[in-house]
This record gives sequence, C-alpha cells and structure tokens, in this order.
Amino acid sequence: MAKQESFAFATRAESAASGRRARHEAKAPPRTKRPPKQPRGRTSAVELAKKQRDISISEFFAKNRHLLGFDNPSKALLTTVKEGVDNSLDACEDGGILPDVRVEIKQISETRFRVSIEDNGPGIVRAQVPKIFGSLLYGSKFHRLRQSRGQQGIGISAAGMYGLMTTGKPIAITTRTGPKRDAHHFELVIDTKKNAPKVKRDDVIEWDKEQGTRVEIELEGAYRGGQHSVDAYIRQISLANPHAQITYVPPKAEEHGAEHVFPRVSDEVPAETAEIKPHPYGVELGVLMQMFRDTKARNLRSCLQIDFSRVSPRTATEICSRAKVPPSRRPGEISREQAERVHQAIQATKIMAPPTDCIAPIGEELIETALRAEVRADFYASATRRPAIYRGNPFLVEVGLAYGGDLSGDDPVTVYRYANRVPLQYQQGACAITKAVIGTDWKSYQMQQSRGGPPVGPMLIMVHIASVWVPFTSESKEAIAHYPEIIKEIRLGLQECGRRVATHIRKRKREAEEAKKLAYIEKYIPQVAVGLEHILGLTERERNTVVTRLSDVLERSRKM
Amino acid sequence: MAKQESFAFATRAESAASGRRARHEAKAPPRTKRPPKQPRGRTSAVELAKKQRDISISEFFAKNRHLLGFDNPSKALLTTVKEGVDNSLDACEDGGILPDVRVEIKQISETRFRVSIEDNGPGIVRAQVPKIFGSLLYGSKFHRLRQSRGQQGIGISAAGMYGLMTTGKPIAITTRTGPKRDAHHFELVIDTKKNAPKVKRDDVIEWDKEQGTRVEIELEGAYRGGQHSVDAYIRQISLANPHAQITYVPPKAEEHGAEHVFPRVSDEVPAETAEIKPHPYGVELGVLMQMFRDTKARNLRSCLQIDFSRVSPRTATEICSRAKVPPSRRPGEISREQAERVHQAIQATKIMAPPTDCIAPIGEELIETALRAEVRADFYASATRRPAIYRGNPFLVEVGLAYGGDLSGDDPVTVYRYANRVPLQYQQGACAITKAVIGTDWKSYQMQQSRGGPPVGPMLIMVHIASVWVPFTSESKEAIAHYPEIIKEIRLGLQECGRRVATHIRKRKREAEEAKKLAYIEKYIPQVAVGLEHILGLTERERNTVVTRLSDVLERSRKM
Repeated sequence: MAKQESFAFATRAESAASGRRARHEAKAPPRTKRPPKQPRGRTSAVELAKKQRDISISEFFAKNRHLLGFDNPSKALLTTVKEGVDNSLDACEDGGILPDVRVEIKQISETRFRVSIEDNGPGIVRAQVPKIFGSLLYGSKFHRLRQSRGQQGIGISAAGMYGLMTTGKPIAITTRTGPKRDAHHFELVIDTKKNAPKVKRDDVIEWDKEQGTRVEIELEGAYRGGQHSVDAYIRQISLANPHAQITYVPPKAEEHGAEHVFPRVSDEVPAETAEIKPHPYGVELGVLMQMFRDTKARNLRSCLQIDFSRVSPRTATEICSRAKVPPSRRPGEISREQAERVHQAIQATKIMAPPTDCIAPIGEELIETALRAEVRADFYASATRRPAIYRGNPFLVEVGLAYGGDLSGDDPVTVYRYANRVPLQYQQGACAITKAVIGTDWKSYQMQQSRGGPPVGPMLIMVHIASVWVPFTSESKEAIAHYPEIIKEIRLGLQECGRRVATHIRKRKREAEEAKKLAYIEKYIPQVAVGLEHILGLTERERNTVVTRLSDVLERSRKM
Repeated sequence: MAKQESFAFATRAESAASGRRARHEAKAPPRTKRPPKQPRGRTSAVELAKKQRDISISEFFAKNRHLLGFDNPSKALLTTVKEGVDNSLDACEDGGILPDVRVEIKQISETRFRVSIEDNGPGIVRAQVPKIFGSLLYGSKFHRLRQSRGQQGIGISAAGMYGLMTTGKPIAITTRTGPKRDAHHFELVIDTKKNAPKVKRDDVIEWDKEQGTRVEIELEGAYRGGQHSVDAYIRQISLANPHAQITYVPPKAEEHGAEHVFPRVSDEVPAETAEIKPHPYGVELGVLMQMFRDTKARNLRSCLQIDFSRVSPRTATEICSRAKVPPSRRPGEISREQAERVHQAIQATKIMAPPTDCIAPIGEELIETALRAEVRADFYASATRRPAIYRGNPFLVEVGLAYGGDLSGDDPVTVYRYANRVPLQYQQGACAITKAVIGTDWKSYQMQQSRGGPPVGPMLIMVHIASVWVPFTSESKEAIAHYPEIIKEIRLGLQECGRRVATHIRKRKREAEEAKKLAYIEKYIPQVAVGLEHILGLTERERNTVVTRLSDVLERSRKM
C-alpha cells in the first residue's frame, strides 16, 4: 500500500488509529461486488417524478430572500432604501439629469415602516411600470455592458415583494415623463407563482412634479443606528455621488423637527459611460458558439468585427486564418470543432485591450474632498488606478485614505467599500476589498498589523471599484467576488496610498522624537546648572548664561 | 443647529473641517427650489423603455456564475463533483437505498476534465430527464419542507450549463429505474435564453447496471490540492455520510494505478425524514394571505389545521376567536385586515413547537467515529443538540471536537463545516458557523484566543447543521446566513464540547506540572544526599536510604 503524495487525505486517513479509511488498491481492481443491504424501499423513480416541477424565480427568491438582502428587519429597511436610491440615481444619469433624490421613512407601528423614494429622473413609460416593479429579472441593464448601479433587474421588485410578503400591501408608483405628460399612479403586487405583476390601481393623477418617479413600499422593518444603518448608507452614498442632492427624512422626523439635506457639491453629471461589446479574450467557447448562432452578421469575419470590441478587419482576418476557418463562413454553420479552433486562435492573437470610456471614476480630487468632509484627519491621499480587465470586463479601482486627527488609533482601520458608487455595508469578510486590505503588508507602511488581520491604527480607507459588470458574491450586492485581477488592482491602489501615508507617518515620528529630546534638554539643563552653581560658586547671572550656552551646544549637537 | 444623537452622521459631518455636510433645518422647511443645472439630455423615458426586457434565469446565472460556485476553474471542478454527489446521495436516500457512488475525473487536456458521477439510486423516469438536467429551477425538493442536500433545483443543471459554456459539450445522462426497465442515454444542452433543454441524443442502451444514474460533464477546470480540493471534499463528505460507499478515481489514476474506496461503515440508511408543513409562527402576513388564496380548505379553521403544522382543532378555534374572524369564513374571502388580525392572533396563541422527526442528525457516536478516523488526537467530544426553530423552520446543530495528538498547536483551529451532511469548503468568513466559533469565549476553555479571532491550538472542530431548509448566503451553498437562532445553537454546542475539552486540558496541564515537579525532585535529591554524605559521613547504603526516604517525603507533601 504505497503512499501517494497527490492525495492529502490518503496519508491522513492511513494515519488514523481506527475507523474509516481510504483503501488503495493497485491497478483499479474490480469494484466491490457485495450487494449493499437494502433496508427498505421508499420512494420510487415514478413517485419522485410526480413531485418534480418548475420553480418560479419569485418563489425562489421569496424563500431565499436573505440572498437579496432581506435577512432581518433592519437589513430589509436598508435594502429597500438602497434599491430605490440606486434606481433613482441610475435613471437620472441615464437621462443626463443632476439627481435630486428625496428619501422618506415613516414609522407606522413598532415594526412597520413606509419608505418612499422620489427622484427628478426621466420617469417611466406607463406600459413598463408593471413589469419593472412587479416581476423579478426584468430591466434594461442586464443585457448591456455598461457601468450602472443596478445590473440585475431584481432589486426594486424584490423590495416590493418583501413589502407584500410582510404587510400584504402593494407597492405604489407615481411617475411622469415630462411636464406635458400625465402623471400616472400605480399600485401593484407580484404574483410569486407566475413572477408576474397584478395591477391593483392605475390612475392618472395630479402631481406637482414636472418629471420623475416616486416609489412607496410598506414593510416590516427596524430602524437602527450604526455601521449598517440607513443613516450610514445615506451619508456614504452621498460621499460617492457628489453630483447628487439627497434629502433624507428619517423616522420620527416630526419629533426631531428636521430633514437632512446633503447638498450637491459638484454640478457635473458623471461623464456619460459608453456601452461596450464583449472583449474576445473574455469569451468562453460555449458562449462563442452561442454568439455564432445568434449573430446578425453574415459571415465569420464580420461577426468577429461587429459583435466584439477591439476586433479590426485585420485582426478578424488574422483570427480566421489562424483558426483555418474561411472568413466567409456563415456563423450559423460553424461546427463545434471549428468554433474551438476560432476560440484558440483568439487567445493566440494579439488584440488591443478593451476601451475604457465605459468607466466613470469618481476621481482623486473628489475622493479627497469627500474624505475631508467625512473626517478631520492629519493626512489624506487618494489614487485612481488605470482601467484593467477581468474576464474581458473593464474595471477600475480607486483608493482614498485619511490618517490621524480625529480617527481612533487603537482599533482596526475603518474600510468604506464602494462598487459603482454604491456603498457596500454587509459581508465585509467575504469581499475582495477586505482580502486586498488584509493581504497588503501595512507594516512596511509604518502601521501595526497582525498576521492575517487588518491594519490597526488611526486610518480610514475608502475603496471604489467601477466596472461595466461588478461580480458580486450574491444578488444582494454586498461583497465583490475574489477575482485575482481585481484583488491585485486594489492592492496596487492601497500600496500607492500606503507609501504616501508612510512618508507622512515617518515624518511625524521624527518630529515627535525631536520634540521628546528637546523636552529632555529643557528639563535637565537647569538641574545641571544648579549643580554647577553650587560646585563652582556661580552667580545667578553666570548660571543663566551657562544654561543658555549649554542649551545651544546640545541643540546644535542634536541637529548634527 | 442642534445636534441629534440619533444620527451618527450628523455629528461627524458637523465636525468636518470643510466640504460636504448635512444641513439640519428646523421644522421641515420647503424643499430646495433651485432647479438643478441640466447639462445635457441623454436617454428619454421612451428610449429607456425600448431597452427593458425579460432576463431568463439561465442567462442570469450564466453571467453570474460565481453565485453558483463557478468562479474559477478549480472551484468549478469541485462544484461539479459536489452537485453530482449531492444529487446521488439524495436520490438513494429518497429511495431508501444504501448509496454506492462512484466519482471519476478524467483529465482530457491541461485545462479540460470529464467528470462522471454514478450511483445505484432509484434512477430517473425518462420524461423527467431533460428538465432536471437542462433547465434551472426545476426539481422536487424546493416545494417541500424536508431535509435534503439539494433544495433549489439549480445545482446539476448549472454544472451542465457551465460545461456547455466552457467546452460546448452537452451533459450526458444514463439512467435506469430497475432491472426490468430500459436504460436510457441522453445528451442534452440548456438553451440559456429560454431556460429550456435541447435534447441532442435520446437512446435506449445496454447497461450492466440494474438501477441508477450516471451523469457526465466535460468542463474547463483545474485539479488542485488543499483545503478547497475535490480530494478534501470526497474525504469530508464520506466522514459525514458513513452509510455511503464512495469510490473516487482522481485524474491520472492510471499513472498512479489506484482508485480510492471509502467503504461504508454503517449499514443503516439515515432515518427517513418526514416532510412538514410550515409552522404558524414562521409565516409572514403576506405569505399567510397567499395561503388563504391557495388553500383547498373550505373554511378558516380547517385551513389553519390542514396547511400548518401543530395546529389542533382547539388551537385553530382559539386563533379564530382571538382574531375575531368566524372559523367558518371561506379563506378566499378573508380581507387584508382580517388576515392581519389572524396573523397577530397566531403570534399571541401558544402553539407547540414544530415536529422534529423531519431532521436526521448524524449522531454523537458516528461523529466521534468519523473524527477518530480523520485524525489521531488525545481527546474527542461530540454533542448533538436538540432541534430548534428559526423563522418557523426546525433545525439541529451537532458539534464534534478533537484535541491534541497529531494536531498542530500553533495555528488557528481547523473548522469543518457541514450543512445537511454536505461539507462547506468556501466562504468560511461569511458563515454563521465561523461567527459562532469566533464568538465563543475559548479562553475560559483553556484555549488561546485573540479578540475577534478564532481560537488557537491543537484542535479540530466539526459543526453540522441539519434543517428542512438551510439558509445559505448564496446559491452556491458555501456559507450559512447569520440567523441569531442558528448562531446561538452552534455556540451552545461548542460550549458543551468546550467544557469537556477544558476539563481534559486542565487535567493534562496538572499532569504536566506534576511531572515537572517530579523531575525536579528526581534531579536534586541525589545532590542533597551527596552533600549529606559528606557532612554527616554517611555510608553509601545510608545515603541511598536518605534518597529514598527524602523522595517519599517530598512526593507525599507534593500530593497534598
């Protein structure tokens, strides 16, 4: 029974004193023939077959609502606000409008809230309202590669579904596409078994707003403070969206008599981002075959040029010849084997990196401004990396950092995580950003750090990843998946800021040491002088001269 | 401008030196009227509407395949094996059959593998094969509350889809429901745009197996060792399923000339678990309203009795009278307000906890046997907790623990996580089990532990949660969501084992100290005797007597 290094379990199992272990048999022996005891018959294949049925996506998410961020009442309230605000900001940017978003949370009973989110966006065409708000997996953002907050077509309808599940109340939508158009008011519910909307009310109403959308959802929730709160979200989303004005009316605002306005600090809508085609390097064989079946192009060469980014006529020809498939081949007639050769040819051909005008960073300057507004620190740094690629998708990382000042020095640093300008408040442990922060050697940047842990010290780190497709670890979009390319870029951004903060810390340390030495000198020289006064019988004037001269001498020698 | 304690951000923002801050205005002033600058018009509501469309669940998961555990090639290989084996074990248990599962991985090229999983389960009725393997969200396990490994109807078809996407090859299924039935062989692909199967081959074939199913998937993958490997998975699944025989043929088995058999160590199929109805306490208002609409019961009282668990006729009557809704009311005619009263009445009525025969624990004895087979340690403990409830779903926690022996003492303890007998190998940081391990005070159990970290020492912990519905944090089923009830039960189980290991460690420490003292005595008494020999002029015999007596005296005093 030879040990085999390739199987970790073999040696461990073999070392076991008793019980179960892996048997290693030479040359694949006949499989065990002992018929296992069959203690009882239970369900036959036929009976099992009767129970097989389709599961609607709404049923699936209703039962798995923690996947969408509705694990518990306080998170449900946050997720509802978040989905509404994300949609409002996206809609305004799509329409080239400076967003003016109003978030209002009314507490109806101890556990029940009514959330309303109102924007000045382009509004929604009447016929689209039911599907957008009353079915999951419907939207305009999924089938394009373009940077936006929403990307799945799930968020707001899931919030409406959660409201319905917990209170039985429909979601209400008021929308108007312009001053000359009617304002429409809908109330609708989702039929989870069919994943389809049921409209309960559909009226034209008077609305003092010229254009925009207002969504209202009643839900079981809880209003809490802290890191995961709606308050923290509103502050963080406002930090990353300086072009938006956000008005926030928290529960019990009447009592406190206040609404909170986060004014616009930049009058520019973020640069319009372009929609892009997939880059050939990121396309897998099966997907390529699907594209050949679906394309409108008449031949392989034009398919490569039209359906992909960065494929010039010359590159297309090069790919065809390398794959030994005629450029004139009709894409629908390309066999699996030919497709495989095209796929290999793509990998072997030099193709320009994807365009990057599809990504709109916040920018180093605005990140630093945001950090200054967030916390009074001694030192600020920010870095916007150049775009990079994961699985064919362009993305870009930005890092901001504040050090010292009001920040507490005894705890692990605070990390603000953002994806496409949306704060990520949950699942910190599962996020690529956390992994990159932990994986960075902060000791070389003058910070404390224990093995496998975050740095400790008076520091706030802000990391933003912008992409045409952010790979979240779940539908609730709380953490970024661990793609190595993404982690690397975050680490490089952290290092860039880390080096700068290290220079600052070193300088501060030097200054502190100087100050300490100076304090020593100031403390002891008078004592020395008093000693000399006694020993040498100096006058008071002579003693003072000695103090001054000694101080000068020592100060000079200290500086050398 | 009064500070408001309820808003963390208010005070922080106010303290900011410059830039953006929340404005607090007294008594909700008129909203800002300044019309924001509109730098440019971009997309109108009508244009946006044109882009709105349905997203098929397959498209969704094809683009988000990391949600299903297909983030990277080595994880994809593991997930494929896992989904196949889970299905095989479930099928065998459904059929009351002792599982005999064979997993074979063939390496076809550097990055391409062909995985086949074969079982002796009840087989699959021919008509069901295409939907089960060729569409997502289809299955028998979702619409029931019963403990099983699969629960979503996604796994195996997603593995097939991943294979198709990366290699263009169909999934192949061979299945036979009994010796007198034909064996069917299918090859099929999933049409992602429709989430529907396309059958490429459907033949009756000769098969030497009397009954069972064999699934083959070709995929881009990577075969690696370590904690996340297929090898580790096979070992761990075998530990938690002692009634299953698992034969594993890893890649390049020909070279090494071996297949690995993990024999059955228990000849009992796990106790058959019952399917249960939802418990009234776990049902939300909206869900209750839906049940009233869907029920076959003719009146409220019988609906409560039939559609829920633990509602006796008396309890049903009590709920009705408390809610002030007539027991004879037709469920379909119950208004929202009445439903809300019924919902409140349910919470106010004492109802027996859900039945727990729906859960099959592994058992303390088998857990300890499994641990003994896994590692040679000094001390073993295990605890099977009594069933508990989260959101109306029964669940049960089991903890096993091994300490000392071959285990390394300098690193954080190893934690094996299981859900419904399936090992969880990824997303450790996001899991309720990890949170419970970290949240337990191990210092009081004689272990080292730093704040917010795992215990450090020579220990292996195994935690198993069994439930009719395990709340995973993602479709890839890698981590358990943070329900407080679940975390509490895990912690109680850990504490139970912790107390026992603490007794052991204390005993060991005492023994070690004794041994140390004894060693001192043995070392110094002869020296003392030599001294006495010189001083008192003892003979050698007298000296030896002194040594013996002194040893006795000191040994006795030490023991007191």
